[in-house]
Amino acid sequence: MAADCRGFEVDPWQLRWCGLDVDALRRTESIFALSNGHLGLRGTLEEGEPVGEPGTYLNGFYEKRQLPYAEVGYGYPQQGQTVVNVTDGKIIRLLVGDEPMDMRYGHAREHERVLDFRSGTLRRSTVWTSPTGQSVRIRSERLVSFTERALAAIRYEVEPLDEDLDLVIQSDLLANEPVVARQGDPRFAAALDRPLVADFAAARDFHAVLAHHTRQSGLRMAAGMDHELAVNATPRCSVHTEDDLARLTIAVDVARGDTVCVTKYFAYGWSSQRSTPALRAQVEAALAAGLETGWDDLLARQRAYLDDFWASADIEIDGDPEMQQAVRFALFHVLQAGARGETRAIPAKGLTGPGYDGHSFWDTETFVLPVLTHTVPAAAGDALRWRHSTLELARQRARELGQSGAMFPWRSINGEEGSGYWPTGTAAVHVNADIADATIRYLAATGDEQFERDCGVELLVETARLWAVLGHRDSAGNFRIDGVTGPDEYSALADNNIYTNLMAQKNLRGAVAACERQPEVAQRLGVTESEIGRWRDCAAKVAIPYNDELEVHEQSENFTHYMRWNFADTPAERYPLLLHYPYFDLNRKQVVKQADLTLAMYLCPDEFTPEQKLRNFDYYEALTVRDSSLSACAQAIMAAEVGHLSLAFDYFVESALTDLHDLHHNVATGLHIASLAGTWSCCVAGFGGMRECNGEVRFAPRLPENLDRLAFRILWRGSRISVDITRDAATYSLLSGDPFTFRHHGQPHTLSDTPLELGIPDLPNVSKPEPPAGRAPYRRE
Amino acid sequence: MAADCRGFEVDPWQLRWCGLDVDALRRTESIFALSNGHLGLRGTLEEGEPVGEPGTYLNGFYEKRQLPYAEVGYGYPQQGQTVVNVTDGKIIRLLVGDEPMDMRYGHAREHERVLDFRSGTLRRSTVWTSPTGQSVRIRSERLVSFTERALAAIRYEVEPLDEDLDLVIQSDLLANEPVVARQGDPRFAAALDRPLVADFAAARDFHAVLAHHTRQSGLRMAAGMDHELAVNATPRCSVHTEDDLARLTIAVDVARGDTVCVTKYFAYGWSSQRSTPALRAQVEAALAAGLETGWDDLLARQRAYLDDFWASADIEIDGDPEMQQAVRFALFHVLQAGARGETRAIPAKGLTGPGYDGHSFWDTETFVLPVLTHTVPAAAGDALRWRHSTLELARQRARELGQSGAMFPWRSINGEEGSGYWPTGTAAVHVNADIADATIRYLAATGDEQFERDCGVELLVETARLWAVLGHRDSAGNFRIDGVTGPDEYSALADNNIYTNLMAQKNLRGAVAACERQPEVAQRLGVTESEIGRWRDCAAKVAIPYNDELEVHEQSENFTHYMRWNFADTPAERYPLLLHYPYFDLNRKQVVKQADLTLAMYLCPDEFTPEQKLRNFDYYEALTVRDSSLSACAQAIMAAEVGHLSLAFDYFVESALTDLHDLHHNVATGLHIASLAGTWSCCVAGFGGMRECNGEVRFAPRLPENLDRLAFRILWRGSRISVDITRDAATYSLLSGDPFTFRHHGQPHTLSDTPLELGIPDLPNVSKPEPPAGRAPYRRE
Repeated sequence: MAADCRGFEVDPWQLRWCGLDVDALRRTESIFALSNGHLGLRGTLEEGEPVGEPGTYLNGFYEKRQLPYAEVGYGYPQQGQTVVNVTDGKIIRLLVGDEPMDMRYGHAREHERVLDFRSGTLRRSTVWTSPTGQSVRIRSERLVSFTERALAAIRYEVEPLDEDLDLVIQSDLLANEPVVARQGDPRFAAALDRPLVADFAAARDFHAVLAHHTRQSGLRMAAGMDHELAVNATPRCSVHTEDDLARLTIAVDVARGDTVCVTKYFAYGWSSQRSTPALRAQVEAALAAGLETGWDDLLARQRAYLDDFWASADIEIDGDPEMQQAVRFALFHVLQAGARGETRAIPAKGLTGPGYDGHSFWDTETFVLPVLTHTVPAAAGDALRWRHSTLELARQRARELGQSGAMFPWRSINGEEGSGYWPTGTAAVHVNADIADATIRYLAATGDEQFERDCGVELLVETARLWAVLGHRDSAGNFRIDGVTGPDEYSALADNNIYTNLMAQKNLRGAVAACERQPEVAQRLGVTESEIGRWRDCAAKVAIPYNDELEVHEQSENFTHYMRWNFADTPAERYPLLLHYPYFDLNRKQVVKQADLTLAMYLCPDEFTPEQKLRNFDYYEALTVRDSSLSACAQAIMAAEVGHLSLAFDYFVESALTDLHDLHHNVATGLHIASLAGTWSCCVAGFGGMRECNGEVRFAPRLPENLDRLAFRILWRGSRISVDITRDAATYSLLSGDPFTFRHHGQPHTLSDTPLELGIPDLPNVSKPEPPAGRAPYRRE
Repeated sequence: MAADCRGFEVDPWQLRWCGLDVDALRRTESIFALSNGHLGLRGTLEEGEPVGEPGTYLNGFYEKRQLPYAEVGYGYPQQGQTVVNVTDGKIIRLLVGDEPMDMRYGHAREHERVLDFRSGTLRRSTVWTSPTGQSVRIRSERLVSFTERALAAIRYEVEPLDEDLDLVIQSDLLANEPVVARQGDPRFAAALDRPLVADFAAARDFHAVLAHHTRQSGLRMAAGMDHELAVNATPRCSVHTEDDLARLTIAVDVARGDTVCVTKYFAYGWSSQRSTPALRAQVEAALAAGLETGWDDLLARQRAYLDDFWASADIEIDGDPEMQQAVRFALFHVLQAGARGETRAIPAKGLTGPGYDGHSFWDTETFVLPVLTHTVPAAAGDALRWRHSTLELARQRARELGQSGAMFPWRSINGEEGSGYWPTGTAAVHVNADIADATIRYLAATGDEQFERDCGVELLVETARLWAVLGHRDSAGNFRIDGVTGPDEYSALADNNIYTNLMAQKNLRGAVAACERQPEVAQRLGVTESEIGRWRDCAAKVAIPYNDELEVHEQSENFTHYMRWNFADTPAERYPLLLHYPYFDLNRKQVVKQADLTLAMYLCPDEFTPEQKLRNFDYYEALTVRDSSLSACAQAIMAAEVGHLSLAFDYFVESALTDLHDLHHNVATGLHIASLAGTWSCCVAGFGGMRECNGEVRFAPRLPENLDRLAFRILWRGSRISVDITRDAATYSLLSGDPFTFRHHGQPHTLSDTPLELGIPDLPNVSKPEPPAGRAPYRRE
């Protein structure tokens, strides 16, 4: 029964974990988390303990906390936001005889858990013998409904194996669960002590509701549960509530071979506006609807939703079953993070854990939205509508910092800046261009004119306005953007960071184009001709630092003149560097936390020649330590483009296994949604070579030796396209919708009913670059 | 009696304040503070209230406090230090009839306070009528002894004016006085609530002792008092103690025209090592010695000490009596800050207030030590011995941050880094070169070989070792120092800051020279030939950024390409900028908080041509907002050198009146010792043109139109030299000691018994540059 350090079995459509390793609980709770983007449940055991981090989250529901500073400074955010572990509805405790079922005691003869990517459920099967020798089989299955966003459900079944047994089942709603405080790592959430204040509790029959609010942020919530019970015996049932607890107790004698089966429906509502009675009514209505739908239909709807998703989004891989599984795991969790957020943010950890305080970053726009835009475009639109809904806060922030337009927060739940260290927070202004880029991509891929008029133009205009005042034309006429932080947080506060400058350029040009397409909206936003002219001029002249001697671009001005980090003398255990070396030293040396210029070459492909891309990639490859999970996917994509296909595959593997193998040692606090999304990008933009430029889609497919076949699907303006890549050719098929125009390795084609099989040109012969000493890509055993 | 906004009367040898303005109490308490560098008393009224900030400080006596961070980072200091307001011995309360003497009640018919620069005492004379109509004259005089460093004394005399009066005098030792918390300005000290824990209290007769320790830092202290009483009546006296209070009560009936006179002696001792009984014994011994010496002899010794000081240090100014007074005020407080520190730091505020938490900065070495080196060289040596005593902490800090050699703290009381914001703290590594520069200056000016062997070589070697690893040779062979903060804190984390690079160069060369002079010490420190060779190479090739188009040096690389700050649209009330604009915006624009390149041109005069100095000065003058009190003096010095004599005079006035006219609105928390010291530099280095280079002293005297005569004195290797400047000539006289070799406007001369009168060449004709809009130098009314 002892699990190895990973314990996952390879299977194309599910993730199975056999054995119980209490030390791994926190990690598996994240991996087995269920979410629909609105409600998230960590993959805890039903019996509540042992537990790593209990974790029930409602998107957008947060508590405020003071941000302390040793030395205060103007414009520092005074309050941060932290995701709250809300009332836990997933607890179903079991007493066998008078022994609480607890995997730490007695003996578990069998135990497995399965996350099923097609059913959208988490199943568990356990055979457990109590310390006094009584054995039961427990089967459970749970879901967070993609179709009923407020609703989750658990079916829980117990079977006495060797003798008739007295069983007690306690189904709880539990608020203010104890949470272990963690310290010492800035990436972990600040623990909140009993964040919920009780407002209301009521119960009758199998039904209970608890309502609470948060102390500082004043958000209100309600949680409710209802149950169905199936057993061949007469149970004694009772329900009661306290401030922080509602409990249905079922005591029943079950005969050997018989079962008791409880189906628990639980629902949540929250609001900053609505009253407690209104929220109570909302969850009771959701429960009524859930009961009316019933367990089987909930399962069927979940399956149908996922069938539809996979029909648009699936990636098939031949030649590496583990990668096949990992890619579907990734897609499943990206869907879970974004499916039903509905004008709420998509946090960096989704709703899988409290990491990063539950905040959203540029990860969403740059890594997650490309996937959603081409697979679940409505979800991408919703995420951008959330950004749009925070525009007024972003405008206020720009004014507070002496700028114009909108300055979106580096990290936030509610749209307010929550970064407590401005050099790698507020100064990372590229987040504004990243939002613009996601807007441009979404508009190009969907043609959603309603969104453009309602949100898109305004997002582009207000971010463009920021760049126009943030940068300036120097005496040589170059448009400089000084003192900002690009993606590489080990090079904070740099001048003319190429990523930032090129993305600002795209932002400015996108704003010009949007205003030209929607002149009425532009007029409403007060855009003048001279303003458009300035955006055009700024974009035309962005400074792009280049080192003539080395013939490479500079990530930012002077960068290539800095001292190189001493990789040879940096032991493996001192990574990530930020936990073992001061920013003071990291910032002043050539060491790259994560793809920066490399990411710019992917997102702005026409701004570099192929020769520059190759030289740049190789130069920065030797400096990039990948201390961020956002790095490997970008390196995979560009490695594939410049011809390092084997290295691209290595980074694809690293990206795909980042969470499954816990490569960053922090899956315990939640999955890395952007890295999971990046795994899709490794396939589609890496081996598929997909690029989007000026509304044009290009592919340049090419398989690494390790794979025999890679097939993916994308949505483009309502058309569903399949790209099926083998060693020698790629076959493009139009699965539904209008004809599709694209490029294949540079040549234009139009795809309609007949699939196109197009040959793949030979790989250029290039020698493989070396990552920094000791930082080779992750190797599977 | 109403005082104007300043209330100081002009007098060459004293500072007199007439009238009582309760709102100005905090400010006058700083200005009237007495200190000997070991013990400091703010200039509070004897009766304890009204009071702004009570303030009794012992140099080096601090409490620790946690430094909080919104986002933690490697290498951030976890604990800071804060100066503690120790047991207050300066309180003498008076009851007239049954009315407490309190200037807020009744009526003060006369009130004046005088700080006497020659007697070294603070005198007060008050005629006060109580609310019930009883009038008294109060005269007091207090001193903090320059000769008995643990001792202070107050003579307090009360005279009934119109009738016989029942008087009660209460003389207190009071620990844990209430202190008002201040917030919102990073420059203000963190208030500490009741920092002292009582250990011991005892009293008998006129004598009492209290002993305490601090909670976190565990430092122990004792305070004691004893009294002499003179009155033509029989007083009822009693003494008693509590944990935090010792009180001598004297009740006496005094006849009209008679007086009661109390002389209070109070003494302090503190230690991290010695026990409470030992500290008690120490203060009782100091009190016994004080009583034995007696008030009159204490006064006489104080006078003698100051006579000696003024004989070496006085500056005479004809033509501007207010500046004459201000310069002596400045010198007096610089002496008070540094006289008897004795291997303790000289804090930025001296011992005049809790500002900056009582920390020392580079201010000491760069601004204060030049004055002390040439006037009280033993005090300069002591301050450098303090730095040397913290070398092991500085080595540990260097290792913690991945560097070699020693990395001295940006701000500290005990030698540990106490900066809670590294970009304008730890990154300001120039403090290391500033310490080296002060060491080089001290050695050159004193020839103190004992100090050189004990401390000097090691200070120079360990700081040179830092630069050797902090910088690196780039592909063009230049020695770059990237990502550091120079004096201008509005341009944090810059590359090749010229000030830092040139001072590092001086540091490296100074280490080479010291090792050559003291090969045995160098060997003991493990210095190798190759290490010396590397220092020589690095120094020879330091990068000096220059803008060929503008023909000015760049304060740091790229600086002249940044956007200029929009001075025109910055209203006066938004200065200092750091309180109204984010560092994010300040750092990325051309705006200079305080002289940076300008200071480099002063301290490294041979690294710039006269033409470069003029162009650079004018360019940076237009960008320098002087949000730091350290700026005006450096600007005055360089303005004088490049020929802007009228502007130099303006900045001299601003520097001299910074504290007297509270130009930075924070004198309440203490004087700006460095700015006061800089006022000396305005005279000596500015109008006197004194520079020290490679052991050579140069003068280039030239008076501004506003002055008729300026005479100053300096010590150089034991010789006392007077420089007496009039419009057309300067007269150099050797007051004592060996002949003195120097340059006058470039020409070498040797001064022995006969004074030399040397002509002053004509002023080059240059047009006056403009400071930023709205930031003209301070103008007297």
